Amino acid sequence: MQTQIQHAIQDDYADDYAWCYGCGRLNEHGYHLRTGWAGDNTVTYYEPRPAHTAIPGFVYGGLIASIIDCHGTGSAALALHRKNGHEPGDGVEPPRFVTASLKTDFLKPTPEKAILKAVGTVEEIHSKKWVVHTELYANDTLCAKGEVVAAVMPSTFTQKK
Amino acid sequence: MQTQIQHAIQDDYADDYAWCYGCGRLNEHGYHLRTGWAGDNTVTYYEPRPAHTAIPGFVYGGLIASIIDCHGTGSAALALHRKNGHEPGDGVEPPRFVTASLKTDFLKPTPEKAILKAVGTVEEIHSKKWVVHTELYANDTLCAKGEVVAAVMPSTFTQKK
Repeated sequence: MQTQIQHAIQDDYADDYAWCYGCGRLNEHGYHLRTGWAGDNTVTYYEPRPAHTAIPGFVYGGLIASIIDCHGTGSAALALHRKNGHEPGDGVEPPRFVTASLKTDFLKPTPEKAILKAVGTVEEIHSKKWVVHTELYANDTLCAKGEVVAAVMPSTFTQKK
Repeated sequence: MQTQIQHAIQDDYADDYAWCYGCGRLNEHGYHLRTGWAGDNTVTYYEPRPAHTAIPGFVYGGLIASIIDCHGTGSAALALHRKNGHEPGDGVEPPRFVTASLKTDFLKPTPEKAILKAVGTVEEIHSKKWVVHTELYANDTLCAKGEVVAAVMPSTFTQKK
């Protein structure tokens, strides 16, 4: 099974916006989630840390929600970037999204010691707002479904410190 | 402002179920979220770590979803425990819930360097299923709203390793 993204949208975020605990490449403590295209779908992989327990043997739901969250904003960024004529790795800074809402349905207990795979389908609902529907798999078993409404980052977020 | 829970439901979870990254007292890497009653509401406090960044200056949404998640299962456990005639600290092991679904609406950017306060109202929808409506505040500003459907832990979770 492929478990690596070659060209991830997060690789191209501007340095100022690359500190997210979930998907910021510059956050040394974070998860470093990376999201890329797989045909018309988006994909993110993550191998939970041993501490990411819910009940021993199963992955903690907050981590799953976190993956769906950053996968959602990354997927929306991929989609708008493509709409604008760009792909990750082409040297153009992509748009950056924030999460307006995040919904996770936990369908089955998610087993530990598996690489999780989030697969997204992206739908534009407004020029600055996208919905990302995500299925999260462990060992090819669908364990959770998610829906993120992602909005282009508003100016309140972009004031530099 | 009060920022500590005296009697938290998580203090009374059985050891086997006290390893959650969000709220398990035995998980050395986790958040150690603790949820208690404040009148008829439930309350959880958490001070984000410096790494829990979204964009510099603001808290990462996955953490907020995680707080709402464990606050939700803890609140449902508090409510069923009370319905059964018990309160945290009375020496009786409480019921343990899992999350069926988790919804978070991000209303405003959540500032860093504030103690977050989740306030829940609990509603029984079935003898084994509760809905917890949560408001999450930073410095008395409502930053997010959440809804958790929590179900009494099914037997698939309770197989001991």
